[in-house]
Amino acid sequence: MLINRLAIIGVGLIGGSLARALKRKKACSRVVGYGRDMVNLQKAVDLGVIDEYSLTVASAVKDADVVVLATPLSTTETLLKSMRSYLRDDVIITDVGSAKGSVVDAARKTLDKLFPRFVPGHPIAGKEKSGVVASDADLFEDHRVILTPLPETSVNALDLVNEMWELAGAEVVHVSVEQHDEILAATSHLPHLLAYALVDCLAGMQKCDEIFKFAAGGFADFSRIASSNPQMWHDICFSNRKQLLKVLDLFDEYLNNIRTAITNDNSDELLKIFSRAKETRDRFTQMRNKCNDATE
Amino acid sequence: MLINRLAIIGVGLIGGSLARALKRKKACSRVVGYGRDMVNLQKAVDLGVIDEYSLTVASAVKDADVVVLATPLSTTETLLKSMRSYLRDDVIITDVGSAKGSVVDAARKTLDKLFPRFVPGHPIAGKEKSGVVASDADLFEDHRVILTPLPETSVNALDLVNEMWELAGAEVVHVSVEQHDEILAATSHLPHLLAYALVDCLAGMQKCDEIFKFAAGGFADFSRIASSNPQMWHDICFSNRKQLLKVLDLFDEYLNNIRTAITNDNSDELLKIFSRAKETRDRFTQMRNKCNDATE
Repeated sequence: MLINRLAIIGVGLIGGSLARALKRKKACSRVVGYGRDMVNLQKAVDLGVIDEYSLTVASAVKDADVVVLATPLSTTETLLKSMRSYLRDDVIITDVGSAKGSVVDAARKTLDKLFPRFVPGHPIAGKEKSGVVASDADLFEDHRVILTPLPETSVNALDLVNEMWELAGAEVVHVSVEQHDEILAATSHLPHLLAYALVDCLAGMQKCDEIFKFAAGGFADFSRIASSNPQMWHDICFSNRKQLLKVLDLFDEYLNNIRTAITNDNSDELLKIFSRAKETRDRFTQMRNKCNDATE
Repeated sequence: MLINRLAIIGVGLIGGSLARALKRKKACSRVVGYGRDMVNLQKAVDLGVIDEYSLTVASAVKDADVVVLATPLSTTETLLKSMRSYLRDDVIITDVGSAKGSVVDAARKTLDKLFPRFVPGHPIAGKEKSGVVASDADLFEDHRVILTPLPETSVNALDLVNEMWELAGAEVVHVSVEQHDEILAATSHLPHLLAYALVDCLAGMQKCDEIFKFAAGGFADFSRIASSNPQMWHDICFSNRKQLLKVLDLFDEYLNNIRTAITNDNSDELLKIFSRAKETRDRFTQMRNKCNDATE
């Protein structure tokens, strides 16, 4: 048995899916959940996602050998602080936050000599639906999980978190905290920002619902991520603010190149930009197809 | 028989799909194709999409009772000019361009007393693949086709084009040229611009392919339209320049609201924007589901 007592702090889509995946693989004896919403926690018990729940974070983490933080990023520091004195000395703590710099800062500040037992993590998986009812044992199958260990991180803590995610079906990769936050700002946080901004722009137009009648599949796909959880994305934006604003400035330059080409009637330039983007996007499709082929 | 001799000018995804759909419904006796690429035209004959092809636009439109222009927008004026003197007096001409103002201007300039025989049209259907090999008799099923008739437009020409698209499986709606260009700039042209700009921005980063490894489904959906035909979108941007630049400025304001909220640590404002966008996007999903339910 990999884990004896697993504490899931935040039994939503990600926390719930991890619990399901590990239970299916018989990788943990007992899963205890903690959250603020008792109805959701009872639902999680009814669905068999967790075995029991605690109404205090203290009793949830007490005796747990592994603690997984799966709550919105804004709660990380407070939760770590409130669980600190109840943690076992040999505990392993990990998280699933979409930004890593701010989480590492919070862990360093609150966990002191337990900091080496903390393994920062981020599964690249999700849906625009949230809550334990959307959780799914297959969510991480063939998805990447990024771990961003630090020089201080304990090797055995890292090994266990690695194995835990592999058992959940994921491919684990290790990158630095800085790299993670830079890459995710570009591939995930910025696209969410743009989708939210576009939909909000349309929402502000007269006869918005009339306009939607003429929206096709392209718009549906482009804007799907604007249906994501607002609180979660609010937290991500503030947690990864520095990298996000940096890539937003860069994006602005590229968008401005397009605008300038259109304004100045620069046909060659516009065609060059669109062709380069298409070529890049087609390469991404090929990479994805190759990955999917390899796992089939 | 609705149409005796149908001339498809530009036998690509849209022109080819329309020909296939009408042939399936036995709505035309003979389909003649015109294009610049003889290999593609021969392919279209081999696939049974068209019955024959012409190497001059003159011979393609001669004797045709209906002419469908399905070429990139930048070619519209030249093609209308070169076919003008070969058109029958009772011809009906329509097009499939994604911008309507520029097409109407070109038609007015070139067709003179045949202008009332021209019905501007735009099927809201497509794929990121192009060419006659991607054409599909089902492409327009349960999709909208927008017609933008003018006060001068002949009623019988409009009726026939209406019926033609309904036979192809589409739901036909009529809006003004101005409304069409404003709505499409917001729901289609701007999202394409943003997707091209984002992918081009990533393409300009170091280790772009490394970055793509960490891109998830959200990015894949968001950026899918950046794989669209660059020449076609180049033409659309210039053809609908005025409305596109207008909505781009509006979008900039909304994106800037988000940026300001993040920069100024305005948590309430950011959450308000994201929540409003999510609510709007969820309403769009409900509208789409309702439409799909109604057609099933």
